[in-house]
Amino acid sequence: MRISELAEATGVSIATLKYYLREGLLHAGEARGATRADYDASHLERVRLVRTLIDVGRLSIDRVREVVTALDHPPEGRHQLLGTAHDVLRQTGAPPPSEAVTAHLAALGLPDCVDSPASTQLAQALSAAEEAGWPLTDATLMSWYAAMTRVADADVAPELAAMSPGDALRHAIVGNVLTDPVVIALRRVAQESLSAQRFDPTSERLRS
Amino acid sequence: MRISELAEATGVSIATLKYYLREGLLHAGEARGATRADYDASHLERVRLVRTLIDVGRLSIDRVREVVTALDHPPEGRHQLLGTAHDVLRQTGAPPPSEAVTAHLAALGLPDCVDSPASTQLAQALSAAEEAGWPLTDATLMSWYAAMTRVADADVAPELAAMSPGDALRHAIVGNVLTDPVVIALRRVAQESLSAQRFDPTSERLRS
Repeated sequence: MRISELAEATGVSIATLKYYLREGLLHAGEARGATRADYDASHLERVRLVRTLIDVGRLSIDRVREVVTALDHPPEGRHQLLGTAHDVLRQTGAPPPSEAVTAHLAALGLPDCVDSPASTQLAQALSAAEEAGWPLTDATLMSWYAAMTRVADADVAPELAAMSPGDALRHAIVGNVLTDPVVIALRRVAQESLSAQRFDPTSERLRS
Repeated sequence: MRISELAEATGVSIATLKYYLREGLLHAGEARGATRADYDASHLERVRLVRTLIDVGRLSIDRVREVVTALDHPPEGRHQLLGTAHDVLRQTGAPPPSEAVTAHLAALGLPDCVDSPASTQLAQALSAAEEAGWPLTDATLMSWYAAMTRVADADVAPELAAMSPGDALRHAIVGNVLTDPVVIALRRVAQESLSAQRFDPTSERLRS
């Protein structure tokens, strides 16, 4: 298809598509003369991915480029795929975690997969909370870890093993980007429900 | 204290503090003449709150202003406090949820606290995931809701009932901002751990 048809199919303007091409977010189409190129399903899929990462994931253009590069050159080893997915989705601008926090996490028995992006991200998040004076107890942290293990049960589905490295990496990245907001929203709904139960049990606000 | 001492105590530059004053994020100090004002512990606390909202919560200046306004005028009713906290932390630029998704959530039996910000946020997040073609089953959604109810158990602590409306509102806002990243990071760590167990059980990468 021509770039105008790609624009129509994706809902993204031609100017923006050309920007994606210039920035290396979208791979070039098949050249058909000096001024025309043909685009196909792979370009459709790529534009949709980029929109998801920007609109839902709120990733910067530089971070989107990292994702695209990783997807174009996925690591061979399956155990590296998830680390790559976690790395491209890391928190922006988070300061390095304190040694005290890192040691504390190890002492708690939380899995520390040898300096994985995931454990680094956890140490950073905890350091930030601690620095701001938020009282997060070990009991709460381990309870939350048990809860998030239940969430991850659906993330690490058996069918991942059968996917190609590129597909599995894309699945891990897109899955986290699209469902992190669902998980957080569920937290808010649960807070609302528990708050009504504990502080306002006679309220007519609750339907269930 | 003078503004220079406030800057030193908070690690925020005088220029930035003056910007916060102009933007209404920081309340004025006590005037002590034409060019001097005195600041106190309330200003210290406010600057730290603003930095947390910006640095960790990545809130926009406009959204920080909403938080500050809400904290300066907290709602009287306790059941409104959490709704206010959820509202100021809503997703930026999310499109309105589809009616189909809203109806579907109601049919699943998820609490719908009469158009609360929380249930709206959930419907929006699900609409976005659906629109991007992510296959999230009802079973997974309800399993995740159970998990997040466990997380929220620590959020809706009994001591909230004894706090003043302003303190309870601040607790709800800051708690979510500081610990959303912890919850998401725990999800990543759990994914890493489950992935190793299911796809790479002989790996030496795991310490526990």
